Amino acid sequence: MQLTGHNYIAGVASAEGAETFFSVDPRNKETADLPFHSATAAEVDRAVAAAGAAFAEIRNYSSEQIANFLDEIADQIEALGDDLLHSADRETGLGLPRLTGERVRTTGQFRAFATLLRDGAYLRPIINSEQPEQPSIRQMQFPVGPVAIFAASNFPFAFAVAGGDTASALAAGCPVVVKAHPGHPATSEMFAQALSAAAAAKGFPAGTFSMLQGDGIDVGQWLVANDGIEAVGFTGSLRGGRAIYDAAARRPRPVPVYAEMGSVNPVVITQAALAERAEDIADGLVASITMGTGQFCTNPGLVLLQDSPAAQDFIAAVTEKMSAAPAGVLLNQTIAAGLESAVGQTTASPDISVLTGGEAVADSDFFCFSNTVMRTSAAAIRADDRLQVEHFGPVTLFVVCEDADDLRTTVDALEGNLTSTIHAEANELENISDLLHQLREKAGRVIWNGFPTGVAVVHAMQHGGPYPATTAPGTTSVGMNAIYRFMRPIAFQNVPDALLPDPLKDANPLGIMRLVDDVYTDGAV
Amino acid sequence: MQLTGHNYIAGVASAEGAETFFSVDPRNKETADLPFHSATAAEVDRAVAAAGAAFAEIRNYSSEQIANFLDEIADQIEALGDDLLHSADRETGLGLPRLTGERVRTTGQFRAFATLLRDGAYLRPIINSEQPEQPSIRQMQFPVGPVAIFAASNFPFAFAVAGGDTASALAAGCPVVVKAHPGHPATSEMFAQALSAAAAAKGFPAGTFSMLQGDGIDVGQWLVANDGIEAVGFTGSLRGGRAIYDAAARRPRPVPVYAEMGSVNPVVITQAALAERAEDIADGLVASITMGTGQFCTNPGLVLLQDSPAAQDFIAAVTEKMSAAPAGVLLNQTIAAGLESAVGQTTASPDISVLTGGEAVADSDFFCFSNTVMRTSAAAIRADDRLQVEHFGPVTLFVVCEDADDLRTTVDALEGNLTSTIHAEANELENISDLLHQLREKAGRVIWNGFPTGVAVVHAMQHGGPYPATTAPGTTSVGMNAIYRFMRPIAFQNVPDALLPDPLKDANPLGIMRLVDDVYTDGAV
Repeated sequence: MQLTGHNYIAGVASAEGAETFFSVDPRNKETADLPFHSATAAEVDRAVAAAGAAFAEIRNYSSEQIANFLDEIADQIEALGDDLLHSADRETGLGLPRLTGERVRTTGQFRAFATLLRDGAYLRPIINSEQPEQPSIRQMQFPVGPVAIFAASNFPFAFAVAGGDTASALAAGCPVVVKAHPGHPATSEMFAQALSAAAAAKGFPAGTFSMLQGDGIDVGQWLVANDGIEAVGFTGSLRGGRAIYDAAARRPRPVPVYAEMGSVNPVVITQAALAERAEDIADGLVASITMGTGQFCTNPGLVLLQDSPAAQDFIAAVTEKMSAAPAGVLLNQTIAAGLESAVGQTTASPDISVLTGGEAVADSDFFCFSNTVMRTSAAAIRADDRLQVEHFGPVTLFVVCEDADDLRTTVDALEGNLTSTIHAEANELENISDLLHQLREKAGRVIWNGFPTGVAVVHAMQHGGPYPATTAPGTTSVGMNAIYRFMRPIAFQNVPDALLPDPLKDANPLGIMRLVDDVYTDGAV
Repeated sequence: MQLTGHNYIAGVASAEGAETFFSVDPRNKETADLPFHSATAAEVDRAVAAAGAAFAEIRNYSSEQIANFLDEIADQIEALGDDLLHSADRETGLGLPRLTGERVRTTGQFRAFATLLRDGAYLRPIINSEQPEQPSIRQMQFPVGPVAIFAASNFPFAFAVAGGDTASALAAGCPVVVKAHPGHPATSEMFAQALSAAAAAKGFPAGTFSMLQGDGIDVGQWLVANDGIEAVGFTGSLRGGRAIYDAAARRPRPVPVYAEMGSVNPVVITQAALAERAEDIADGLVASITMGTGQFCTNPGLVLLQDSPAAQDFIAAVTEKMSAAPAGVLLNQTIAAGLESAVGQTTASPDISVLTGGEAVADSDFFCFSNTVMRTSAAAIRADDRLQVEHFGPVTLFVVCEDADDLRTTVDALEGNLTSTIHAEANELENISDLLHQLREKAGRVIWNGFPTGVAVVHAMQHGGPYPATTAPGTTSVGMNAIYRFMRPIAFQNVPDALLPDPLKDANPLGIMRLVDDVYTDGAV
């Protein structure tokens, strides 16, 4: 495969801009030779216009047609072969085993959406048949139109150019314009070639997919401000996500932004759990904190427990294990600098004790920050919201509570998160219910006796949560329901059967599950 | 029933503010005696704090408990008796027959949500059972927390203090703080008493419901800016809705705003339909435009047709009928002034011809604007977005297109609307499909051979649409799915059965429809 360093606009490589940037290997900080061209304003406009033209075609495609396209994308990604793995490994330092697994997840997402589309019930057809003084009303979900997707750096496959946002938007029937992440531009271009090839192979309009490169904020701002964009998906930092959200809200015609941003993923450990399984919990916690050098949105960055000798021992054990764990490779210079800045702001607080780490490893050949454990009091974190900031890397903060009331009051003061976790014992079940459901209000997913890293791509998954975890807590960016971010219901009143989409016709020719006069059925009307 | 002119904060009448306003009878412009007190900033804060405290209780109530509360509200509204009708009639001039029907709709909404809750499937339980290397993940919908609702003026029952927004938010399990509309404060207070009584009767915390009065923008701005509010429902003007949306987006912690705003509800009439049913369509159109003095969000304000002698005759017939129809009572001074301003701006365009009306009736005893028909060309409306502005009253604008292409190009240039309508004939079905599905992209509901006024409160209804019709086209403010604006999914990972909410337990004790391992079933896991 030949890489060009160009943008891909409706299947055509384009490099009109003079600004370029380069791929950097985080393991040795070496810059590669190929310049990547940041898109120009005119290129952004062209990509969005092509997406609009494509939408006029594909908005009437059947679920089956779209499913075939999604399967073809998965095949085309696999056809990239090991070149894809090596490219991503060189650009992210994540390692071949992890990337091999992430590729399976990425192609799996496309195929899972294809299965969802073929089943058909995802369209949520609802029919109220004609009654005296009430017309026939039938609704189902339709694609919203061209979607802008912002790729993340930490999952170069599963949350990037061909990640879950792109998969769910294409599955919805929406054309996609992706702003690639500058951390892995070569990998992004390989995906752009695969997606463009899939569109061509299945006869989809070329404007169904475009990819824009760029290492500043301009390309993204132009993209979100473009009136042709109907919805935005974003995975990244709170600062970046909020900027995109604000830009979309300022538009003359604002559109929804589905941004998945910062999360500290609080973990509560009860005294009974510590008494029973302190060693296992410590091992699991350290593995979860250091996995992928801590660069997961579900990294457990805040651990709450009641003070006791056992708690002191537990904190000491975690600190020792974190000190002993090898320092991992950070994704890039931006991540490394951001982590140093965030930890520096936190440790500047007089209420924070650094138990291990807390500093960048300046003389390292690779981008590196020491594994870090910090400690504070419950009163301190309640008094200062800034101590709830995400430290994106191998970092966690223990919050030591005086007693059960202090713990409960602190949980109430938590901000929104993607996940919340509780470690407890079976014999506590009666007392623990209130605490568990209090933690529920703070997150999109509540985990019992486990760790938040690892997000199953299944129908019941909820990867979202109250702000600042996301800008849209009613939605998810992982799992099958991610598709609804890019669809909207449209109702048809008294429309003749011949003009209705197949899922709404009397005979139910596709045999899908529908809500007919308030009863679920896969039969005819 | 004794009216106080006070706010109702967690069941307690409160009048701390010095600013007052009065109810005005639109039929004679006479001001009533009772002063209504605009809420103060402290009263707003107290209402939101009480809602937060109430939420800590009711977030764990069962659907059955909430359903009983909703039924009680409907009973309490009915117990207000004819006093409610007379109060609303005096404050809105809408007339007893219309208000009697609207009351049925209003109590019907509460009871329909109660039925939905008892069925249980609205919780959308999704279960992925434990598999090798995959934990058990189970999700369902939960209430988001305290909700702010802004009442509309044009439906003093169905879109006001106890309207669909309040009904759906309470049904979701959210406490509600309503900003009452200043156009009908006495009616609002009667509803506040009924809702407070229902909460007390069913043992719900008093903070479950509060109502704030106010005739300026301050109370609403304070309410939306309050960090304790998790979502906002609004029905009203584009200007008002956008201000609320902008205020919520500016918050340190932004929250979603579900605003239903301006819509011109385009109607396309084909030449075949004109040839076949010109007289019937003209009668139906005039009835729809003048119904409720045109003060419906689904009022047909834009009619597109191809130029022809039949089209000229049709426009002349509609103009004549509009001239002959009696002038109706407008709701209040604000509506009357807004309509005069909007029509004035439109008629200032050199491309607009006024065929009848176009002016306020200044010497009328009641708030009054003449029934108005205007005409423009397709090219003109494409060239000037301002001609698509909503004229909230008995006003419509004919858009005369040169030919079928001109019509199609103009439909493409339409902004977002709540509804779009097409009148066509059965023998056109093959040719008409593209046009119908083009109109689909411009609205939340597509109507065939009917008129957009009249919104059935059924499961399949979609009352929403792309901006500026709403700020959230994926949602509806009428029908059962309105509840999802105020809910969010939360997933439980590996949580023991005893700690799960009943709808997610293995045994499915409530017997509700669930998606279990990708199959819909009301059985156990």
